[in-house]
Amino acid sequence: MSRKLSIVGLGPGDDRYLTREALDALAKAEAFYGYGPYLDRVPLRKGQSRHASDNREEAARARAALSRAASGTNVAIVSGGDPGVFAMAATVCEEIAVGPDSWRALDVAIVPGITAMLAVAARAGAPLGHDFCALSLSDNLKPWELIERRLDAAAGAGFVIALYNPVSRARPLQLSKALARLAHHLPAATPVIFGHAIGRSDESLAVTTLAHARDTLADMATLIIVGSRETRVIAREGRAPLVYTPRAVEEAIA
Amino acid sequence: MSRKLSIVGLGPGDDRYLTREALDALAKAEAFYGYGPYLDRVPLRKGQSRHASDNREEAARARAALSRAASGTNVAIVSGGDPGVFAMAATVCEEIAVGPDSWRALDVAIVPGITAMLAVAARAGAPLGHDFCALSLSDNLKPWELIERRLDAAAGAGFVIALYNPVSRARPLQLSKALARLAHHLPAATPVIFGHAIGRSDESLAVTTLAHARDTLADMATLIIVGSRETRVIAREGRAPLVYTPRAVEEAIA
Repeated sequence: MSRKLSIVGLGPGDDRYLTREALDALAKAEAFYGYGPYLDRVPLRKGQSRHASDNREEAARARAALSRAASGTNVAIVSGGDPGVFAMAATVCEEIAVGPDSWRALDVAIVPGITAMLAVAARAGAPLGHDFCALSLSDNLKPWELIERRLDAAAGAGFVIALYNPVSRARPLQLSKALARLAHHLPAATPVIFGHAIGRSDESLAVTTLAHARDTLADMATLIIVGSRETRVIAREGRAPLVYTPRAVEEAIA
Repeated sequence: MSRKLSIVGLGPGDDRYLTREALDALAKAEAFYGYGPYLDRVPLRKGQSRHASDNREEAARARAALSRAASGTNVAIVSGGDPGVFAMAATVCEEIAVGPDSWRALDVAIVPGITAMLAVAARAGAPLGHDFCALSLSDNLKPWELIERRLDAAAGAGFVIALYNPVSRARPLQLSKALARLAHHLPAATPVIFGHAIGRSDESLAVTTLAHARDTLADMATLIIVGSRETRVIAREGRAPLVYTPRAVEEAIA
């Protein structure tokens, strides 16, 4: 019996970001667990089964997959982007920590994927070319005061900031509040990138400034990158601009 | 004439992390530029040429590749990991910014890859499951005082911290100083992960604590992840421990 659980990152969008390691893990699995739209990206061969669950049922999904793997099935949980970045790998670890001994005995393999911030950065140029951070704006999982404190710390110290989960029906105002907070630390001309559904056929990219950034540019499929004081934009005739953060900082930022 | 420049991320280690998009870009290129060990990972077909340069010649490499692409060749610069994270994409943008108009007219395509911190995190569990940052310890490119300020800001605000470029012959003491600095903010038991050459046949992973972390555990092929106060370790009999940072923080950190 295999008693294996893989947590596989599919990357964002379509299949262009799938790695060979991910393809291998998907080929070997007998049962797939995941959010429906991610499962739809995995073609089934004979003998493979799929078990879809809703986006808000991560813990229950992790428990179901762990139980199935412990019963002797080769199980794969599929995840968009990278499973280790605000996604299923942490959920599975949380459940293993409080679950039966048989879950700790499983062969757990996490297969990394291209996370949204890398895909959006690549489309825009090189905004993550210098120190950066990734921050989820979901306050389901932490107090809003902590999010504000992290925005202050990151912007104040000169990190470029990638914002995950910028908006949802439950938190329509978070992004507006976050952008206003960042405006206390950063110049109005700081470049801001809105990457929507990168890798999908309906992908779009908007480059604007902190002064002009609005929450209406974002939805649940948007990843936002807010530059630092060092981030620059190269205008190009007939082409999209290139946004980049130079590798070097000459002097300590005041 | 193609006048195309691709900057292609190969991921760390061997070819398991190559994406379909990267394979497509490599197949179409006529001339490859890059650091020798990365070029060695790209098999050449008839009609393709390769141009190796040293690790410290990034700017000259970017200029050579840009000139070649502007002359009508389909050029690919290859990069380990992700080209947008402390790598060639920013270098190319820096050169385009100060170069001739013909460089701004090029079709520049950046192909993202698995960056080292995602590969190391996947091997260890889910240490990047909550907010995190990526920081280069190279003070060739910025003042040491700024690195310390960023370590203070990131650790103080509860970000997990991925350290790139932890040591080199030119800076043997940076990592020791960084770990000592972090110890002002974080408990002695904070998990620290040293990932060496992940994805290569000589890969290794060490999980220790901030109190026991030493610069002797790192070389130039090491990526380090320092946990936050929330990061936890699941011990497993007969298996490597799982290190993870829970998705949720219940209360603001004092």
